[in-house]
Amino acid sequence: MTAESQKDWTADPADSLRVAPGFRLADVDPAATPGYDHGKKHAAADLDAGAAQFDELQERLFAQSRENPNAPALLLVLQAMDSAGKGGIVRHVIGTTDPQGIHLKAFKKPSEEELAHDFLWRIEKEVPKAGYIGVFDRSHYEDVLIGRVRELAPPQEIERRYDAIVDFEKRLTDAGVHIVKVMLHISPDEQKTRLLERLDRPDKHWKYNPGDVDERKLWPAYMDAYQSVFDRTSSEHAPWFVVPANHKWYARLAVQALLLDALERIDPQWPAATFDVAAERARLAAT
Amino acid sequence: MTAESQKDWTADPADSLRVAPGFRLADVDPAATPGYDHGKKHAAADLDAGAAQFDELQERLFAQSRENPNAPALLLVLQAMDSAGKGGIVRHVIGTTDPQGIHLKAFKKPSEEELAHDFLWRIEKEVPKAGYIGVFDRSHYEDVLIGRVRELAPPQEIERRYDAIVDFEKRLTDAGVHIVKVMLHISPDEQKTRLLERLDRPDKHWKYNPGDVDERKLWPAYMDAYQSVFDRTSSEHAPWFVVPANHKWYARLAVQALLLDALERIDPQWPAATFDVAAERARLAAT
Repeated sequence: MTAESQKDWTADPADSLRVAPGFRLADVDPAATPGYDHGKKHAAADLDAGAAQFDELQERLFAQSRENPNAPALLLVLQAMDSAGKGGIVRHVIGTTDPQGIHLKAFKKPSEEELAHDFLWRIEKEVPKAGYIGVFDRSHYEDVLIGRVRELAPPQEIERRYDAIVDFEKRLTDAGVHIVKVMLHISPDEQKTRLLERLDRPDKHWKYNPGDVDERKLWPAYMDAYQSVFDRTSSEHAPWFVVPANHKWYARLAVQALLLDALERIDPQWPAATFDVAAERARLAAT
Repeated sequence: MTAESQKDWTADPADSLRVAPGFRLADVDPAATPGYDHGKKHAAADLDAGAAQFDELQERLFAQSRENPNAPALLLVLQAMDSAGKGGIVRHVIGTTDPQGIHLKAFKKPSEEELAHDFLWRIEKEVPKAGYIGVFDRSHYEDVLIGRVRELAPPQEIERRYDAIVDFEKRLTDAGVHIVKVMLHISPDEQKTRLLERLDRPDKHWKYNPGDVDERKLWPAYMDAYQSVFDRTSSEHAPWFVVPANHKWYARLAVQALLLDALERIDPQWPAATFDVAAERARLAAT
């Protein structure tokens, strides 16, 4: 991170939240705020400051792709148990920049047509173009999460998918798509609180789905499936980050920091003019 | 408009900016700020206040569609000469709400595949789903604007398109898509100033396109084509609004007011729960 964006962090989230060899999900405290010793109010100010940086970097990323179809893109993959705050990330982190440079895709239950193809068929179609920041709200990882927990595919097919994902993501990164994979990690108690709130507020009923309780009962199986995802698919080229998310303000600030880190590594530059500036000025003046 | 959102307007922009029978584009002063007697700073505060209303109405619109696939949608069609500020509308008006409820499409020069279909084929695919706010940055109107000025189609085909557009938009509105069509109107002098600024700033070069000067030379022909668009396609169900746009702050505030007006007429409501709230609370408590 730059001096400016990291000044309030005691440890760079791109290091401290990264899934490294030997990582154990069970060791992560969803209520922790690793690397950040300030509170909610301070975090709000830091999020605003980060939003200005994010906006500038997004515009540069977009600009440099206008003349170069091979320019980099950025892809944020968001996975989480229900109510963990994916929507809040989209709204409060991604939503601070220009919608014209964002490609957002929420993956739902696959359609019949999608199921008749390989699981990566519908994913490939949504990979962000050069210059765009793509956001996957759920992703191909559902096919090894709910796919495994609910036994929607046989074990050997799940096994095949881990390797297929690693190869797929390697191809994307080789083609210039920088991938940041984030699991927002909440505790079962925090989920209960949030689901109850949805039941208590009529303006939140539309966000409540009885099926969420069914999935909730399978929490340990989901955590096992996530652990396998981390073991099998956190690669050098497309690392996973596990972000403690009981504190929404922390999760948002941390995901923003991960995106800023990725953008700073891309280091997008304003493209040089592809026309003669003086000649154009003269041509324009003559009109 | 509601009392709150109209309090600083002396005339409702949904009335004063609307293209009514007898409208003449030549009579509109692009530097005017009809219905709004305050300045830039006051407008910024009003835009912020309007953004909060817009955000609430957008969430309700989205929410009510979750259980009803026939719920309304809203479509903003943006047309303008280059540099008139379409991008700024997307960024500063649309960009204030949740990206998850926005369907944004920038129409470029048609592809070969698109040209092999009727001009509305590519448009149909981008019509917003129930609950979404769609934004067309350019649209099917290009096919009767540049299409006419550059003679990309014979006159009888251009004639056919006006009627086809009216019928198409009628079908959409009958199906629940509320349509707000906006032309951002700048003066040739203002455009020259803006294009020169793009040439003067290396971080704006990427936004400059030498072709813009070629189109600029055809200004009177474009204004004639716009006049025909208004004469032929401003209907009761899908009216045109001409928004003076030399002052960016005015154009943004006015477009926001038009969207608020449309949303208030839709008057979206939080949907009733489709499940037994007490039973779900008990089921959740038991986990």
